[in-house]
Amino acid sequence: MPAPSADRSAAAARRDRLRAALGAAHPGVDALLVTDLVNVRYLSGFTGSNGALLVWADAARGDRISTDGRYTVQVGEQAGDLPLVLARDVAGGLLAAATEAGGKRIGFEADAMSVGEFDRLAAVGGTELVRTSGMVEALREVKDHGEVDAIASACAVADRGLATILADGVIAPGRTERDVARTLEWAMYAAGAAAIAFETIVATGPNSAVPHHRPTDAVLRRGDLVKIDFGAVVDGYHSDMTRTFVLGAAQDWQREIYDVVADAAQAGRDAARAGARASDVDGAARRVIAAAGYGDNFVHGLGHGVGLQIHEAPSVGATAAGTLLDGAVVTVEPGVYLPGRGGVRIEDTVVVSDGPCRILTATDRTFTVLD
Amino acid sequence: MPAPSADRSAAAARRDRLRAALGAAHPGVDALLVTDLVNVRYLSGFTGSNGALLVWADAARGDRISTDGRYTVQVGEQAGDLPLVLARDVAGGLLAAATEAGGKRIGFEADAMSVGEFDRLAAVGGTELVRTSGMVEALREVKDHGEVDAIASACAVADRGLATILADGVIAPGRTERDVARTLEWAMYAAGAAAIAFETIVATGPNSAVPHHRPTDAVLRRGDLVKIDFGAVVDGYHSDMTRTFVLGAAQDWQREIYDVVADAAQAGRDAARAGARASDVDGAARRVIAAAGYGDNFVHGLGHGVGLQIHEAPSVGATAAGTLLDGAVVTVEPGVYLPGRGGVRIEDTVVVSDGPCRILTATDRTFTVLD
Repeated sequence: MPAPSADRSAAAARRDRLRAALGAAHPGVDALLVTDLVNVRYLSGFTGSNGALLVWADAARGDRISTDGRYTVQVGEQAGDLPLVLARDVAGGLLAAATEAGGKRIGFEADAMSVGEFDRLAAVGGTELVRTSGMVEALREVKDHGEVDAIASACAVADRGLATILADGVIAPGRTERDVARTLEWAMYAAGAAAIAFETIVATGPNSAVPHHRPTDAVLRRGDLVKIDFGAVVDGYHSDMTRTFVLGAAQDWQREIYDVVADAAQAGRDAARAGARASDVDGAARRVIAAAGYGDNFVHGLGHGVGLQIHEAPSVGATAAGTLLDGAVVTVEPGVYLPGRGGVRIEDTVVVSDGPCRILTATDRTFTVLD
Repeated sequence: MPAPSADRSAAAARRDRLRAALGAAHPGVDALLVTDLVNVRYLSGFTGSNGALLVWADAARGDRISTDGRYTVQVGEQAGDLPLVLARDVAGGLLAAATEAGGKRIGFEADAMSVGEFDRLAAVGGTELVRTSGMVEALREVKDHGEVDAIASACAVADRGLATILADGVIAPGRTERDVARTLEWAMYAAGAAAIAFETIVATGPNSAVPHHRPTDAVLRRGDLVKIDFGAVVDGYHSDMTRTFVLGAAQDWQREIYDVVADAAQAGRDAARAGARASDVDGAARRVIAAAGYGDNFVHGLGHGVGLQIHEAPSVGATAAGTLLDGAVVTVEPGVYLPGRGGVRIEDTVVVSDGPCRILTATDRTFTVLD
């Protein structure tokens, strides 16, 4: 029998941390029924599209995983340390197993389970279902070394993808937003991406003033600001980066808002330390933009956590609660958007620590006019 | 003021059908709160990532749409006929609007709303929240002409994408599964795909025996069965097609299972008529495979509905309830999988009618050895 992989021991350690958190937040709850698929992956390594996990407050009672017949081979490879409950209705299967094992009060993820599914489970009876919220998401906020390595790899893939299309002169007048987006995605695949992290944003000219513009057949033109927001996935982990260029020749207003955003990004990265309040980190960047007179043109939060999902805890916005934790991975992405004219966003993915943050996205972020 | 687009009048007609269905299934319910984003799109045209819809049983009370500040321009363009309730908490915003307008009993989509969100809405009080299930999904089962046109376009894009890589000799010994998948996706984008319908499956040799194999760096080799399952998205609508080829030279067992699957696919398509029980359509194909001695090697259902989602109602499997409706769009996709050796699946997307089904995926499905 092969030794447990690093992934398996990491997953087992995470389940132990969840046990401790469960006992603290919900004393008297016998086990947590995990149905959010990202959380199932995090706690077990299993990546199938149907699965659930039963994590006991008392480790000795033996955690269980459930999936259906399509995934019997895969679940053995990815989470073979966990006894399998084979069922199409994975939550129902695990709840029955929990009841049989004497579980009385079973926690569930209230934000991941639909009312319809809850009704079906509750109708079976035999256990009390107890609402929980954000238990696993809170654990996921602090990344372990393997997770940081995966995110760093995803960031490196994105860096290489962008370097490829810059070297090939793809970001140039005459190309369409869609064409640039597809070529960049292709380059990321060629650089080792398992998947694209989210729909690539390429926004040129006035479109760059739309924070979440979707690529169109709009043609890049000399003098345009071109904003590119994109990422790769490696081993399930995401990267997130934005760079903004000017084509051919820059106008003063473009350079001005670029410099403001670059200064704000620097201030945000400087403020992103363990123990800092998330809202203060947002504020550090926002103050720079407001002082330059563009406060009304920075219309979104400074950043968000990145990991198994492209958007996860913590939120780094003006109204965010909580502080940044040592080992959190977040984006720092201020922007200034001038409707009808154009916009600039500079975004990096960084690892928070007691010292200066570690920037994982390495592409140059100085003002660049592409010829 | 511009005339309502075809999309808007189609969406308005769908809301009227929903009203009728709501009155029949839930008399006494004043309105349905629609929170499933695909259903919101279907009933309004709005494609943003945060939105909800309030559809009254009595049309005169005035349906409402809700989204947040990121989408004010977009919602005006896509669903400008619907008064907007601007809110980050779209369900809460619409429920408040419903209460203010005198709504007492408000239906909600129990399979689309989490327990956590339900609790938050219920805590506000003032209305009774009534569970509903599958109301909009049932309407979506029958496609209107615009929807069939969009699916047909998506199928044509997939056909052209596959034709391109066949002409370019991409499906050949020495290429990897991943490389073939990426090249096919690229070709579909070039042919007009707005997006890829799902993660493209390219499975070679023994991998072709895994129904939902994900592309790896496995190299295609002479003598392999290569199974390719893929689709495109056009105007939000999906296509779904599988073709299986042999590389270089075919062995007898490969030809044999191919012929069995081709006959089963024909039998399934022949049986796919309006009024047929879905389980009988599955059975028509399954009998052919069982009679050839491969019954245990056809390990999934015959098909599924296709539309705004890649998998939607109706299910066309052995245990499926219900009958196929005139205007339903479904896949017919029998397969035979010989573990460790290889597998064949042939899949088409078809429109169900009173007469023979209309096949939207046109790529040749005769046994083909690629040289």
